[in-house]
Amino acid sequence: MSYDVGSRLSDLRRAFHRHPEPGWREFRTTARVVEELERIGVDEIAVGRDALATDERMAVPPESELEPWLERAREAGVRSDILERTAGGHTGVIAVLEQGPGPCIGIRVDLDAISMRESSESDHRPAADGFRSEHDGYMHACGHDAHVAMALGTLEAVADSEFQGTLKVFFQPAEEISGGGKAMAESGYLDDVDYLLALHIGLDHPTGEIVAGIEKPLAMAHLTATFEGASAHAGKAPNEGANAMQAAATAIQNAYGIPRHSDGLTRVNVGQIEGGTASNVIAEEVTIEAEVRGETTALMEYTRTELERVCYAAAEMHDCDVTPRVISESPSVDSHPALRDLVGNVAWDVDGVERVISSEEFGVSEDVTYLMERVQDDGGFASYVLVGTDHPTSHHTPTFDIDESSLAIGTSLLSETAIELSQRPV
Amino acid sequence: MSYDVGSRLSDLRRAFHRHPEPGWREFRTTARVVEELERIGVDEIAVGRDALATDERMAVPPESELEPWLERAREAGVRSDILERTAGGHTGVIAVLEQGPGPCIGIRVDLDAISMRESSESDHRPAADGFRSEHDGYMHACGHDAHVAMALGTLEAVADSEFQGTLKVFFQPAEEISGGGKAMAESGYLDDVDYLLALHIGLDHPTGEIVAGIEKPLAMAHLTATFEGASAHAGKAPNEGANAMQAAATAIQNAYGIPRHSDGLTRVNVGQIEGGTASNVIAEEVTIEAEVRGETTALMEYTRTELERVCYAAAEMHDCDVTPRVISESPSVDSHPALRDLVGNVAWDVDGVERVISSEEFGVSEDVTYLMERVQDDGGFASYVLVGTDHPTSHHTPTFDIDESSLAIGTSLLSETAIELSQRPV
Amino acid sequence: MSYDVGSRLSDLRRAFHRHPEPGWREFRTTARVVEELERIGVDEIAVGRDALATDERMAVPPESELEPWLERAREAGVRSDILERTAGGHTGVIAVLEQGPGPCIGIRVDLDAISMRESSESDHRPAADGFRSEHDGYMHACGHDAHVAMALGTLEAVADSEFQGTLKVFFQPAEEISGGGKAMAESGYLDDVDYLLALHIGLDHPTGEIVAGIEKPLAMAHLTATFEGASAHAGKAPNEGANAMQAAATAIQNAYGIPRHSDGLTRVNVGQIEGGTASNVIAEEVTIEAEVRGETTALMEYTRTELERVCYAAAEMHDCDVTPRVISESPSVDSHPALRDLVGNVAWDVDGVERVISSEEFGVSEDVTYLMERVQDDGGFASYVLVGTDHPTSHHTPTFDIDESSLAIGTSLLSETAIELSQRPV
Amino acid sequence: MSYDVGSRLSDLRRAFHRHPEPGWREFRTTARVVEELERIGVDEIAVGRDALATDERMAVPPESELEPWLERAREAGVRSDILERTAGGHTGVIAVLEQGPGPCIGIRVDLDAISMRESSESDHRPAADGFRSEHDGYMHACGHDAHVAMALGTLEAVADSEFQGTLKVFFQPAEEISGGGKAMAESGYLDDVDYLLALHIGLDHPTGEIVAGIEKPLAMAHLTATFEGASAHAGKAPNEGANAMQAAATAIQNAYGIPRHSDGLTRVNVGQIEGGTASNVIAEEVTIEAEVRGETTALMEYTRTELERVCYAAAEMHDCDVTPRVISESPSVDSHPALRDLVGNVAWDVDGVERVISSEEFGVSEDVTYLMERVQDDGGFASYVLVGTDHPTSHHTPTFDIDESSLAIGTSLLSETAIELSQRPV
Repeated sequence: MSYDVGSRLSDLRRAFHRHPEPGWREFRTTARVVEELERIGVDEIAVGRDALATDERMAVPPESELEPWLERAREAGVRSDILERTAGGHTGVIAVLEQGPGPCIGIRVDLDAISMRESSESDHRPAADGFRSEHDGYMHACGHDAHVAMALGTLEAVADSEFQGTLKVFFQPAEEISGGGKAMAESGYLDDVDYLLALHIGLDHPTGEIVAGIEKPLAMAHLTATFEGASAHAGKAPNEGANAMQAAATAIQNAYGIPRHSDGLTRVNVGQIEGGTASNVIAEEVTIEAEVRGETTALMEYTRTELERVCYAAAEMHDCDVTPRVISESPSVDSHPALRDLVGNVAWDVDGVERVISSEEFGVSEDVTYLMERVQDDGGFASYVLVGTDHPTSHHTPTFDIDESSLAIGTSLLSETAIELSQRPV
Repeated sequence: MSYDVGSRLSDLRRAFHRHPEPGWREFRTTARVVEELERIGVDEIAVGRDALATDERMAVPPESELEPWLERAREAGVRSDILERTAGGHTGVIAVLEQGPGPCIGIRVDLDAISMRESSESDHRPAADGFRSEHDGYMHACGHDAHVAMALGTLEAVADSEFQGTLKVFFQPAEEISGGGKAMAESGYLDDVDYLLALHIGLDHPTGEIVAGIEKPLAMAHLTATFEGASAHAGKAPNEGANAMQAAATAIQNAYGIPRHSDGLTRVNVGQIEGGTASNVIAEEVTIEAEVRGETTALMEYTRTELERVCYAAAEMHDCDVTPRVISESPSVDSHPALRDLVGNVAWDVDGVERVISSEEFGVSEDVTYLMERVQDDGGFASYVLVGTDHPTSHHTPTFDIDESSLAIGTSLLSETAIELSQRPV
Repeated sequence: MSYDVGSRLSDLRRAFHRHPEPGWREFRTTARVVEELERIGVDEIAVGRDALATDERMAVPPESELEPWLERAREAGVRSDILERTAGGHTGVIAVLEQGPGPCIGIRVDLDAISMRESSESDHRPAADGFRSEHDGYMHACGHDAHVAMALGTLEAVADSEFQGTLKVFFQPAEEISGGGKAMAESGYLDDVDYLLALHIGLDHPTGEIVAGIEKPLAMAHLTATFEGASAHAGKAPNEGANAMQAAATAIQNAYGIPRHSDGLTRVNVGQIEGGTASNVIAEEVTIEAEVRGETTALMEYTRTELERVCYAAAEMHDCDVTPRVISESPSVDSHPALRDLVGNVAWDVDGVERVISSEEFGVSEDVTYLMERVQDDGGFASYVLVGTDHPTSHHTPTFDIDESSLAIGTSLLSETAIELSQRPV
Repeated sequence: MSYDVGSRLSDLRRAFHRHPEPGWREFRTTARVVEELERIGVDEIAVGRDALATDERMAVPPESELEPWLERAREAGVRSDILERTAGGHTGVIAVLEQGPGPCIGIRVDLDAISMRESSESDHRPAADGFRSEHDGYMHACGHDAHVAMALGTLEAVADSEFQGTLKVFFQPAEEISGGGKAMAESGYLDDVDYLLALHIGLDHPTGEIVAGIEKPLAMAHLTATFEGASAHAGKAPNEGANAMQAAATAIQNAYGIPRHSDGLTRVNVGQIEGGTASNVIAEEVTIEAEVRGETTALMEYTRTELERVCYAAAEMHDCDVTPRVISESPSVDSHPALRDLVGNVAWDVDGVERVISSEEFGVSEDVTYLMERVQDDGGFASYVLVGTDHPTSHHTPTFDIDESSLAIGTSLLSETAIELSQRPV
């Protein structure tokens, strides 16, 4: 190619980096992806509602939190037909490229950013080079901007190749809040996918290193619980209240005490709390946001059940009510060894790859597992691939950045794997 | 007088009722009081900064919470000279009426409202008769509107009477948050007060009933404590955090377990909490709002010291930092028996009074105790008087209301007491 | 009398002091009382089973703890007829002295000692003068030895007097564990009692001071709760257990957090705990001993109900079972003002009395309230009288002792009150 | 051999089974081992004090708990020279067999039983066949009786073989309480050991199955902590106490909340508690027995440090003192792969072996790790071998039993491994 792929990928990534949008609010990001797809010329573009099983969406924020982002996108000039199809928390796109008979290969990337104020220090390259977040308080601090760029690059590369078969790229919304995975898994577009590749950049792997397939992503559930008691004057008649504050504190203390499990790793956290109205009033209502994880889906479910029990008992202890509610959830699914092996073999031939790790335990959660589970339950193969990149600081920090030379590596790996699969299916 | 006092008092009370303002934000209320004082024609009006020892103010909200109320007052046409003197949390007025030689008598009332949405039901008279709160979400649900009306009525009545001496009326801001008492006590205006009368309406006493002096108001302190830890990924490395959520929960559990005291009643409450950023992040910061009370100042201080110890130990347990800070505070002071007796005697002669209770335990807190303590420490006498009123529901509820016929009773009681004291000092 | 009453009372008190026996194990003490009663020559002596409503006994220890004390008494030469009637936790005596027509007057004293090792220091008079406890680890550290001596002295004095009527003395067992009061109250012997006098020495009142009647003894309940879970290997499979240790800790934390009550003083304490088998085993069983108190019986019952709720919820939280059980209990009963006044009047004429306090709040619990309640429910009058004594250290300490000159004061007060009541009933 | 090895091993195992003794009290067991060693005719027998670094013993019970077992052994006819050398908690033996030049091979087995009442049901073979525990309340419920029998059988087999080198057998006391490992590791006898084999029977592996070397035994520490406060009357003046019960409950709640660690498995448990004197007294002293474990020694130490922090902060919170003390401890050490491989190879040739597992994670703790660590730190190799046996119920249950046909398998495996090592050292 006479064309500078590296620079093209880098430009794309920077464009997405400048306009980070949180889960279910990726209006502008979705639109930009659509435009790129139109430019590339794929066979089908399913936007928003068409790309999602609406009822399976999780963790959708209230309209009041969606609206300002829609407005912002509209003001930035986003096409109204795209806004219409994505309004109300229906972001995301699926692209379909058909190149004759052959296997159907899926690639899944994620669109959303997190709420974090990006560093403006001069040694933070996005700040120095002028592509720092323009949405103050939000940032692509996890690398999803790079994922999207690589997916678009892959489509382009595959379209230009001898690839025979179908390539579907799933641009999933709301990964950070485990909200979009299930809705995309149930969209119908996954039904004929034979091989699914998911992707993450970095995660402490340097540029040139590839992990062919991760294992043991943690199954996860995010729960919210509101303890509802009765207020009373704390000086005059504390006994007339039902103290939601004491109920919440008891629940928190005991949540962290849920027994470790013999079958493997579990996690529990109460990460957010809010409640009560004044220091002199027995708190009527206190809400906690909690999550549980497990090395297997069963371990996560064990911990979730225990957490629910803890909440109910804590409420009862202080004469309060509570109904813990699951906001979002994702299972644990391993990469398939055969697909993993194929990815590993392809990787050795990719320019810039210096080390290939066959498999690694993941240790965190990802709702792509819904898509992986769906494909593997239907007899397909899935693998979650890590593309190393030198990153100066950890993911989810204000100075997170990537080495953009890894964009070409990831793009090549994905496209070469797709081509290899179309020729020599495993 | 040919003039209908009852209706005049009622009109005043309703005017204040329509425009409730929370503590340190009583810009419009202060201005209205000033206008009334100018109309009555008192000898000195100390407004805002002049009426307060600025450094002794407690619980002053940040400028960002003051500003909108100042704006609202400005838009409502409040005089800019008054706004200038009250800006930045300097609300309140002191009126001085001089009528020759004689004792100096003080009366203290309070200006602020609470944050509560007033009922709009048709059986709630302020709603039915068109004087419901026009500041949505705020309400005179404790009767301070009535206090102010009675104080103004008293000034007028005393001005017209044979009273000899000086009458000072302290229109104190921020009583509900125990913020203004100390600042007014230290304003200098209290230094020559021989007798101080404080006032509350209702408190479960019906119209026609007077309590000549309360005893054992609870000493109180409001504390805030922010537990500061370190965030970490709750799935990947919970051990790398310092969990402010666990620290707060431990503090809450143990706060309520502070030992009851042999010397008398104590109270402790954690009434508000907020912290953490997401369910999957170890909480870096959690803030609690707490209060302690005691039947005596010493008992309150015992409980406060224990609460501080609990906070420090809870922080240490989870490797967090904390510095509990007292936001506001008030001592416990009893009414003076001699002044109480005089009020009781006067009360029997007031029209509409059917029952006089000599003394009653108070059971709640009031920062007028700073003023009472100041007067009594200097050898003066203070009494906190309850003026009964039929109130359909409890104070601090959305349907709180008063029987306006009690306004005349309270006004007469205060003015007659002042006159009696000028003639026969105790 | 030519006879040295002081020395006689002192000898008696010392004899009881030397042989302290804990609740329901006062075999030797009971026998010694019986011998004294036989010497005095009363009209009826109800021993053990005859003096108790067997089913109403509370806090009776298991046979294995009773037996050694019975054996010890047998070895000390206690008459077998008395042992037969008191075996199995049936200690106590009621003496009836009939002297013609007239009111029936009851006096109640208590027999039991506590488990505490008496001081052997030379400045502890019982040690110096050779009447230190001979039952190592047990001690009359509350003054019951003095109570018994005064009751016997009173019987003797009344028998020799012009008293007309019936005098019944209730030598109650197991006061310290609130075990014997109800059983004696329901024995039938109380049914015709018109006036009941109960008695305590000391309680920080010096020799020469009398409190004619106490008020507000705390109602009390002693509960035991065993949390029953399931053991498991703490290293291998903590999740397979049901952790009774966590359940107990949760219960304790929340027990102390039971809300203070607007109606008055409450208390809660978990004073004893035991459970688990080894550090590496999830605890299957943990037992707590707790108590609740209240200024009124209703307040105690509120606290007891809350404590039970706390226990149930804590068990549920950790998948354990629990059934809190009330071991013993006593209500709150005030002294009758009329009887209190009469006692106060009589007291002024007693030799050695220098100060009479009409009434005092009690602040602790006493199961004589069962007897007082019974008498007053039937229309009679009861008063709980304090007889001051200089005591070098607090009750329930190893160096507790009394000023024996107070024995004559207490004896005179009781006998003179009985005589006065027989002549001028209130 | 014409001689029935199976029956001989079985007789030995049953003899030990009949007389279980807990840690540091294996007086009779030690003596019986000595007698067997004398019969076999080894070259050196180090008994008790000679086999231990006295100062390194851990978890030695107080003399009052040792004495009754010494007496019982004396009454059973144990030789006084052996009792002298083992008195005061110095049980254990080391046997040395020297057969010319060659490597020094160590085998370690354990002597102690646990406190558990053995089943007397007829379907429990030890009960049916008459070798049930004669020490009621104690039982060989972990298989140490089998370990000792196999070690003696191995000595005999090796003595009769072509083995060239030195064989040392370490009969270690107090394994169950992690008390004896370090003392034997530091005895000096381990200094020249080139290869160390440790041994466990069962652990859910059936007869015929061998695990050649375990990995990741959990590092472990057992801690005791006494919270020391001040007692006070719970009704009269709870504020005068310093509540050790609240301190302990707070510590327990927070101990279970110690964060899970990103580096691997941790465990924490509070398995035993005792304290307080009565329900109506603020508890002055409460003692907890706790343990922490970790997949690595560092993880155990992290958890131990956190637990100590929790204890200190809980004490401080309630104005108590505490000094957590480590009672016993053991590191985590993996089996050496080379030695593991050799054991695995030998195993395939042992009669009765049907399956050889190369390696397995252990999941529990064992203080043989002190010996393994010592050998491997000096450049030697150690492996912890599992010998399968059909066991009807779990270890540490009243019906635990083994399939005695596994005794010959274990004996052959050990002796053949020793012989192999003397001929072809790894």
